[in-house]
Amino acid sequence: MDLEFNIESKKENSNSKEKENKLITDYSKFFSLRNTTPVQVTPIELKSFVVSKDYYQFGAGVPSHLFFPIKGLKFQFQYVDETIEIEEDNLGTLQQYSQLPGFPKLIEWLRELQKRYHGLDSYDTEGKEWDILLTTGSQQGLDVMFKVFLDRNDSLLTERYSYGGMFALSQPFGVNTIGIEMDDRGVIPDQLQYVLKNWCTLHRDKKFPKALYVIPHGQNPTGIIYDLERKREIYNICREWDLLIIEDDPHFFLQFENPMNEKGHRILEKSFLKIDTDDRVVRLDTFSKFLSSGIRMGIITCSKKLMPIFNLEVTCAIFHPSGLTQAMLEALFLRWGYEGFENHVKRVQDILIQKRKDAIENIEKHLKGLVTYRVPNSGLYLWLKLNNVDCSLTFIRDIVFPRNVLFGLGISHSPDRNVKSPYIRVTFSYLEKEDGDVAFKILGDCLRSLNGNNNIDQDKKTVSVNDKSSSSKPHQPLILQLQFHQQIR
Amino acid sequence: MDLEFNIESKKENSNSKEKENKLITDYSKFFSLRNTTPVQVTPIELKSFVVSKDYYQFGAGVPSHLFFPIKGLKFQFQYVDETIEIEEDNLGTLQQYSQLPGFPKLIEWLRELQKRYHGLDSYDTEGKEWDILLTTGSQQGLDVMFKVFLDRNDSLLTERYSYGGMFALSQPFGVNTIGIEMDDRGVIPDQLQYVLKNWCTLHRDKKFPKALYVIPHGQNPTGIIYDLERKREIYNICREWDLLIIEDDPHFFLQFENPMNEKGHRILEKSFLKIDTDDRVVRLDTFSKFLSSGIRMGIITCSKKLMPIFNLEVTCAIFHPSGLTQAMLEALFLRWGYEGFENHVKRVQDILIQKRKDAIENIEKHLKGLVTYRVPNSGLYLWLKLNNVDCSLTFIRDIVFPRNVLFGLGISHSPDRNVKSPYIRVTFSYLEKEDGDVAFKILGDCLRSLNGNNNIDQDKKTVSVNDKSSSSKPHQPLILQLQFHQQIR
Repeated sequence: MDLEFNIESKKENSNSKEKENKLITDYSKFFSLRNTTPVQVTPIELKSFVVSKDYYQFGAGVPSHLFFPIKGLKFQFQYVDETIEIEEDNLGTLQQYSQLPGFPKLIEWLRELQKRYHGLDSYDTEGKEWDILLTTGSQQGLDVMFKVFLDRNDSLLTERYSYGGMFALSQPFGVNTIGIEMDDRGVIPDQLQYVLKNWCTLHRDKKFPKALYVIPHGQNPTGIIYDLERKREIYNICREWDLLIIEDDPHFFLQFENPMNEKGHRILEKSFLKIDTDDRVVRLDTFSKFLSSGIRMGIITCSKKLMPIFNLEVTCAIFHPSGLTQAMLEALFLRWGYEGFENHVKRVQDILIQKRKDAIENIEKHLKGLVTYRVPNSGLYLWLKLNNVDCSLTFIRDIVFPRNVLFGLGISHSPDRNVKSPYIRVTFSYLEKEDGDVAFKILGDCLRSLNGNNNIDQDKKTVSVNDKSSSSKPHQPLILQLQFHQQIR
Repeated sequence: MDLEFNIESKKENSNSKEKENKLITDYSKFFSLRNTTPVQVTPIELKSFVVSKDYYQFGAGVPSHLFFPIKGLKFQFQYVDETIEIEEDNLGTLQQYSQLPGFPKLIEWLRELQKRYHGLDSYDTEGKEWDILLTTGSQQGLDVMFKVFLDRNDSLLTERYSYGGMFALSQPFGVNTIGIEMDDRGVIPDQLQYVLKNWCTLHRDKKFPKALYVIPHGQNPTGIIYDLERKREIYNICREWDLLIIEDDPHFFLQFENPMNEKGHRILEKSFLKIDTDDRVVRLDTFSKFLSSGIRMGIITCSKKLMPIFNLEVTCAIFHPSGLTQAMLEALFLRWGYEGFENHVKRVQDILIQKRKDAIENIEKHLKGLVTYRVPNSGLYLWLKLNNVDCSLTFIRDIVFPRNVLFGLGISHSPDRNVKSPYIRVTFSYLEKEDGDVAFKILGDCLRSLNGNNNIDQDKKTVSVNDKSSSSKPHQPLILQLQFHQQIR
């Protein structure tokens, strides 16, 4: 584990010769077909689309400020005594179209945040230019990644278990996701190397991957953290094979067992962005998991060279995230300052420690011997292996859910859906201790009903987890659209 | 012009035999390839992803409400005396993940709004089910339309001049946009029929179109309105050739010269949705042009059969629009009620009448004989033909913009960029009379400097609008990405 507090500059390996050799100056080899069909527009047209007070500008298709409905807006924030009133000028700004990367003061504040946590130089340092761009959360960050980099039948390497929303997104895009085996430090470097070296024999029908998608801290669903050494091994393999790294890091601030610095704040692991010497990391942050998910706001951080195309994709898709959300975050962060932000993060971590403790007490009480799990030191999730179940989907669906208890299902986190998964995911951040007491007891009862009875009579339809129709063959996924249509009829 | 107030039921042609024959029950023929690669997920997994209080649900990947930063929120709205405070329960809701179609009370209110204005039956009427879905504005509505319906090299029919953001979006999607000639009542039916009949000779390299994209009221950029008769003609041609109609209608409420009803509210034209007997209209609404653009909120309205795939696309792209915006609109609309909403619309229309008057006085003062235009009775725009200019882009760029005046450019509204356009678009809603006085005077001076001098000495680089390099050949568009990259370097 990395014990330094990460406000130092990104200078690692800066003297190595390799760095000069691998710096990506032209990303076009990674681009999707859609990205090679650029939008045709002249600079003067670009100017004519946006509101400006620098000249008489009547080109932009904007409403009059006289139409705006909000004439007053006041927030009360956690850990802030006074009520914060949004000024009249800002009320106008938040109700009118604005421009990416986002509200200037908010962007400035967030650039400094990224600098502090990811060891970046000033964003406009010559030769090391980077920048941020606001999105409506990391889900949109992913939509942009797929649009910009990945064509139909392109391949994306992922962790063996990973974020379900990414797999769901990959399917309409027609992108192959190939999971790499993990241990409790993340993707196993030898496995990654093996898959890449033997690509043409293992995956000869699929295009060679362009990127590795990775969730490095509080990994979803396993809760593990990639330590620095593991990150460096993975990074070097991605350099060797010239892969981009899409670092989706929603739980970065949820590393709740790391050692503390002198100010009592936990020292967070170095991100892939922090060790990135080649500009091959595109980092996705979101406020969803440690602040608020409903406000829908996230950040893309990467080399400034990629920003124009990301900016174009976000603009074409939504113009920009809600001005109301931007104004709220701007007011909150400027009032909190970085110290207030760090205090909030510390409180969130402390809450998670308590929530995890509550969950584990209940698991030990009700599920001893029935499940196998690793105590997570980050993130929101417990990843439980059901010891005597080979398909958690059928077990939960047919036995547990009828008793009004539901958990996340292993299959949702697998790139390969033609397998059975014995895992369930429990969001302990959302779990009230009393509810957990009830829910885990029910889960325990259901599991015990199977115990020693794993090869239950195949004809007994009551215990369908092991019945012939469901678990004796790989799980056959149904189709979302059909399901929806069926609901309608 | 249609004089009835449109709260009646959608019953037109309901007795005709044709209706039964043309009702679309299966949309798969319109679907894109990405849409035929459905997301694989079982119903129990769908349940496990979302927050529910109906059972013990610890599957969803959600933060604790203890992390949420907003503990108080107060709005003051136009035309409402008291301050509206968002209740604690709603504060929790708006800061947590929520589900599409959107916040229940807001959705209920908006369904009723759509019913009133578009003559729909109750949304769950058997055999006539329709619904709405929130988006972050119509730009996202378009992103969804392209994703769901249009593949690379598919074709989309548009108006001869149309919304620039739609053309920009079509390019990365690789979709052909073919503009149909218009008069001051919209797309000319004979022209539409001609293009469809002769598709294989006129456009043999392009796939037959799947849809017509149309902006029926306050058309962007021309400001015209399709009257009911014209709509019916267009609609019948779309029936004949089995095309979907994407009705993008941001200026529906900006019909500011229509006759009034007994309550003093203007009677709005029937929309394409209102005359739709076949479920072939997908309607996009937005709050951007008559309420606020910065809050980023729009609505898709169409047959309920299409909702699952639209829901899936919005969910995969952004999960849902900002809860802060949803809560704000819910509070506003529930307080205003439909009468308050209609009063707001009336005030907006009255402002536009004044703004148009101001703009036209300035045009008549400074541009008499130099421009040709039609006085618009809806929307935000004046569409001016510069009488002695054949390429407004080079003229504005080289002669007018150096004098600190900028307008929208005709070429931005053309599906074919290899042409010259003599038009400019002026957003009169955004124009202050004094500023217009200055800006139109400068435009007039610039135009007069050309007058009688149209074939100006080709070597005189000072008047580059007619110089050899720019206007003697079709305008060669530059590439956005290159421009951006150049800015970076």
